[in-house]
Amino acid sequence: MRYVDVAIIGGGAAGMSAASRIKVLRPEWNVRVFEKTNFVSHAPCGIPFYVSGFFEHFEDLCTYDVNYFRTERGIDVHVNTTVLEISEGSLVAIEEGRERVYEWDKLLFATGARAKRLNVEGENLEGVLFIDDILVAEKVKKLALKSEKVVIVGSGYIGVEMADAISRLGKKLTVIEIAERPLPEYDAEIAAILKSEMEKKLDLRLSERVVAFEGRERVEKVITDKSEYDCDLAIVAVGVTPNVDLAKRVVKLGKSGAIKTNSKLETSKEGIYAAGDCAETFNIVTEKPDWIHLATPANKMGYVAGVNMAGYELDYPGAVKCQLTSFHDLEIGKAGLSEFEAIKEGYKVVSAFVTTKSSAKYFHDGLIHLKVVADRNGKLLGIQAVGRGVGMRIYGATALLYKKANVRDLFFTDFPYYPPVSRVWDPLVVAARNLFRKLGLP
Amino acid sequence: MRYVDVAIIGGGAAGMSAASRIKVLRPEWNVRVFEKTNFVSHAPCGIPFYVSGFFEHFEDLCTYDVNYFRTERGIDVHVNTTVLEISEGSLVAIEEGRERVYEWDKLLFATGARAKRLNVEGENLEGVLFIDDILVAEKVKKLALKSEKVVIVGSGYIGVEMADAISRLGKKLTVIEIAERPLPEYDAEIAAILKSEMEKKLDLRLSERVVAFEGRERVEKVITDKSEYDCDLAIVAVGVTPNVDLAKRVVKLGKSGAIKTNSKLETSKEGIYAAGDCAETFNIVTEKPDWIHLATPANKMGYVAGVNMAGYELDYPGAVKCQLTSFHDLEIGKAGLSEFEAIKEGYKVVSAFVTTKSSAKYFHDGLIHLKVVADRNGKLLGIQAVGRGVGMRIYGATALLYKKANVRDLFFTDFPYYPPVSRVWDPLVVAARNLFRKLGLP
Repeated sequence: MRYVDVAIIGGGAAGMSAASRIKVLRPEWNVRVFEKTNFVSHAPCGIPFYVSGFFEHFEDLCTYDVNYFRTERGIDVHVNTTVLEISEGSLVAIEEGRERVYEWDKLLFATGARAKRLNVEGENLEGVLFIDDILVAEKVKKLALKSEKVVIVGSGYIGVEMADAISRLGKKLTVIEIAERPLPEYDAEIAAILKSEMEKKLDLRLSERVVAFEGRERVEKVITDKSEYDCDLAIVAVGVTPNVDLAKRVVKLGKSGAIKTNSKLETSKEGIYAAGDCAETFNIVTEKPDWIHLATPANKMGYVAGVNMAGYELDYPGAVKCQLTSFHDLEIGKAGLSEFEAIKEGYKVVSAFVTTKSSAKYFHDGLIHLKVVADRNGKLLGIQAVGRGVGMRIYGATALLYKKANVRDLFFTDFPYYPPVSRVWDPLVVAARNLFRKLGLP
Repeated sequence: MRYVDVAIIGGGAAGMSAASRIKVLRPEWNVRVFEKTNFVSHAPCGIPFYVSGFFEHFEDLCTYDVNYFRTERGIDVHVNTTVLEISEGSLVAIEEGRERVYEWDKLLFATGARAKRLNVEGENLEGVLFIDDILVAEKVKKLALKSEKVVIVGSGYIGVEMADAISRLGKKLTVIEIAERPLPEYDAEIAAILKSEMEKKLDLRLSERVVAFEGRERVEKVITDKSEYDCDLAIVAVGVTPNVDLAKRVVKLGKSGAIKTNSKLETSKEGIYAAGDCAETFNIVTEKPDWIHLATPANKMGYVAGVNMAGYELDYPGAVKCQLTSFHDLEIGKAGLSEFEAIKEGYKVVSAFVTTKSSAKYFHDGLIHLKVVADRNGKLLGIQAVGRGVGMRIYGATALLYKKANVRDLFFTDFPYYPPVSRVWDPLVVAARNLFRKLGLP
């Protein structure tokens, strides 16, 4: 019997997790990873911390280097290699300038996502950067250090984290957001706290649309529908889109535009799988297909795809979509849906917003602002928080949402009381009690 | 119709939560609280922080003062009042030196717990203190400040937290523990980390039994089966026992020695309820009756007892027994059972112990040591951790245990990745993956 050939397109979190898993379960199989950059297991989540100087070596953005995967895990990694075409059982890649053909019995799309473009004039000017992959990190850092004025377009997670980083470098910074609040996935009560903190550190422009970038040799100005801003560097972070140029010719896409998969992470074609930011999976809260392009789901999707590709069975249950970030001293987190997202999904909702100290009253750890959203039957739909002690509450919230908990569970889960960091009536529990009232529970 | 009279014996967390709940649901009822000290809603969890000087005002150990409950919540609080006797529909209390009789239609025992005695010679000497209630806090602080040498007997939660406090005051401190490790409820791997940290700050004596206290007018020496230790102050923290002297004459006790209750927190006698540290309830992990004497369950038990006493229906589901503490820079937490506790309960167990950075590799937040225990079917039984980032993981663990999760849930819950505080493969997830191997899952 000939070797089973596995082709994995993309060497990021999902691709390398899948490759590693297959080699553990099927050491004799031939696992090839085709990666277009010079790096594998790249983790772009760290870019803002590299820019602000929390660590020095750009290579630390990769969990492991190529040699580790080759020698320790026996994975045949092809870097600087772009896959051009996929046909039944084979693919064409361009590698060191030459086209080569590889055979495959099973194939994984792990092609990730890329930064959305604004499609406005001047966005290809030198000095306009998109946070596409880790290669841009060095460029951003170099440019940021020598710039006087920086503009960031967008204030989603990446925008906010880049704003934190650039503001720590002491640069004059403007953040332009098209929505009426920063982190527009969050409800207004939560975003308002972030907004007032951002306004202390930078010039925040809300409800403004960028219409062009201007400059002779390089960017000098960002033009919006309301004003214009001088800059030496413009960072565009207005969301991402799945990398499916190659996949869409071969397999079906979901409504989200990402690759449709089943619970085994197999696509519409038998033997072809998809995992990570290019794949659509399942939202545990809404119980609908969803495109959840986040790092921990990507790694686990890679793991699950690897198990199934290796001929074992493992279902991927989906994710609740949990995120954590911060802006200076403010921690910010969300698990599940915000209220407006829940309403958009068709839920009839109740919500509670509480502001309380994060710790016992005699400690001075600051406030936490927390919002819990539930449906009329008491099913938890989402929890958002901003302030101090957010991480703990979001970990608890994620687990409850994952297990389809209701507000009674939120009330009764005996989260620990330890005066320096928590309260005997935890903010989560206080919010649950508020919801009891709104739901007519005793 | 005459007023319904409610008698609540004990004005701590459980008693005041119940009283408050009843007054919300039945504002016209007459709710009397009999409290033997001068304080209500006292929260002894804060004592170590008062001793070490994190806050100055002893009164801050009470969530609210007596007047607040009287004027804002309409509760008839009787402080400095000891209930002597309970009979059908009435009770005798001693109040301002006089015996008085009060009628009741519904009664709640919320008498709490008290520090265990060692029953050795000399333990009544001046300078030997038991952490019984918040009244002792001032005494401990005053004595600790003027002492040169302090001995703490016991290294459970209270012992460890008092050791943290006293060592911050710069006193020569000896901690004597009868077990072979500090925090003996934890497994050895976790306790070992704490042990080495404690040994840097104080003289830790393990596997030693205190046999006497000696001194002329006040304590001067603690005598053990192995040695003796000079001291100006000895703090005894060797566990607690439920205060049931009064209750045991009226209602049934459980195996634990605390008052037996059903899910409505009613005792063996109709109309008589029990809540807080004096009551036995239910362990959600073992699915057996258990005595879980902790602050957050006590408050919720008070709430539930109050709802049921007011004539509404609410079941108390029990608790997973979750605790969080710290010793200097080390956070320590546990939810559910340790491995040895699980074995004692008759489970066939598997466990995983992982040591990893708490954050992304390029942050320097230190290590977390985490142990997960499951049964052979993969049901989660307990999670313990020590190091950095413990609180977050314990919040997540508590929610999963509360919802009877298994190791697959632990693996798939999408805890958030945020490089400064967490990892893309969270320690919880790494431990789950280890358990997959041990359970023969792919």
